[in-house]
Amino acid sequence: MIRRSLIALLAGAALMTASTAQAQTTAQDAAAVQALLDEYAAAWAAADAERLMRLFTDDAEWVNVVGMHWRGKAENQLGHHVFLTTIFRGRPLTLLGVDSVRPVGDEVVVAVARWATGGFTAPDGAPVPASDNRMSLVLRRAPEGLRIAHGANVVIDPVAARNDPAKGPPRD
Amino acid sequence: MIRRSLIALLAGAALMTASTAQAQTTAQDAAAVQALLDEYAAAWAAADAERLMRLFTDDAEWVNVVGMHWRGKAENQLGHHVFLTTIFRGRPLTLLGVDSVRPVGDEVVVAVARWATGGFTAPDGAPVPASDNRMSLVLRRAPEGLRIAHGANVVIDPVAARNDPAKGPPRD
Repeated sequence: MIRRSLIALLAGAALMTASTAQAQTTAQDAAAVQALLDEYAAAWAAADAERLMRLFTDDAEWVNVVGMHWRGKAENQLGHHVFLTTIFRGRPLTLLGVDSVRPVGDEVVVAVARWATGGFTAPDGAPVPASDNRMSLVLRRAPEGLRIAHGANVVIDPVAARNDPAKGPPRD
Repeated sequence: MIRRSLIALLAGAALMTASTAQAQTTAQDAAAVQALLDEYAAAWAAADAERLMRLFTDDAEWVNVVGMHWRGKAENQLGHHVFLTTIFRGRPLTLLGVDSVRPVGDEVVVAVARWATGGFTAPDGAPVPASDNRMSLVLRRAPEGLRIAHGANVVIDPVAARNDPAKGPPRD
C-alpha cells in the first residue's frame, strides 16, 4: 500500500516535472516567436530584405499571398527586396496576434500569426485593398534561436470567416 | 603522404556514404509524399473527411485558401466534412505536381504541392472560379508513415505569377 502510494507519488511528480518542462518550453517558444515576429516587422518597416533574411535558414522556402514560391535564400532575398522597395514600401504591417505556437518533434516549431497590411498596387497596376493575412511559419531550432525554414501567407477573407463551419453557426 | 591520402580517401568515402544516404532518404520521402497526396486526393474525391483525417496528426492545424484556421482533429474533421459534402462535392481536385520535398531536422518533412481545383459556389453564394492552389505541408515522421501536422493552402494568382521578381523578367 505504501509502495503503491509511493509509486503513484513518484509518477505524479514525474508527470508534473514533464508538464512543467513542457509549459516552460512553450512559454520560451512563445517568447522566441514573438521576438522573431517583432524583428520581422522591423525589417519590413525598414524595407531591408538583407535584415529579414537573417531570420531565414539558407534553404528556406516561402509561398506568398499570391502563391509565388521562392526557394532558398537567394530567391527569397531577391523577391522580398524587390517587393519591399517598391510596392510594399511604406505599406504598414502590424502584428495582430499569434494564434498558435506548437512544437513538431524536438527540432521544429510551427507558429501561426495574423498580420494587418495596408493596401498597395500590384506589379500589373491592379489595386490590392488592405487585408489581414494569416501566416504559417515552420521554425527550425538553431543555436542562434528559431529560424524560418518555411513560410506560407494567406489573405483572410472576412466574408468567409463568418461562415467557418468549424466555428459554429454563421456570425454577423 | 600515404596517411594524408588515406584520410582524404576515408573522408571521401564518408561523404559519399552520407550523400548516398541523403539521396535515399530524399527518394523515400518523395515517394511517401506522393503516396500521401494520392490518398489525399482519393479521400477528397470520396468526400470522406474521416478518411482524410487518417493522414493528419491529432494536433494538426490547417489554414485554408480563405484563411480559416482549424486547430486539432475535431475542428479539421468538421470543417473538411462540411465543405467536402457541400460546396466541394463533385468539384475536381487534381495534383499538378510536387514542387519540393525537404527534411527540416530528423522528424519533419516540408512539402509543397500544386493542385488544380474546379470552380464552386461559396457559402455566401458567391461563385469562386477554378484555380490552381499551392499547398505547404508540414509532415511529421510517424511509425505509420508521414502525417500532416500543419497545412496552408494558397490560391495561385496567374497574373502575379508572370511578375514574380525572383524568377526574372515578366513573362507572357
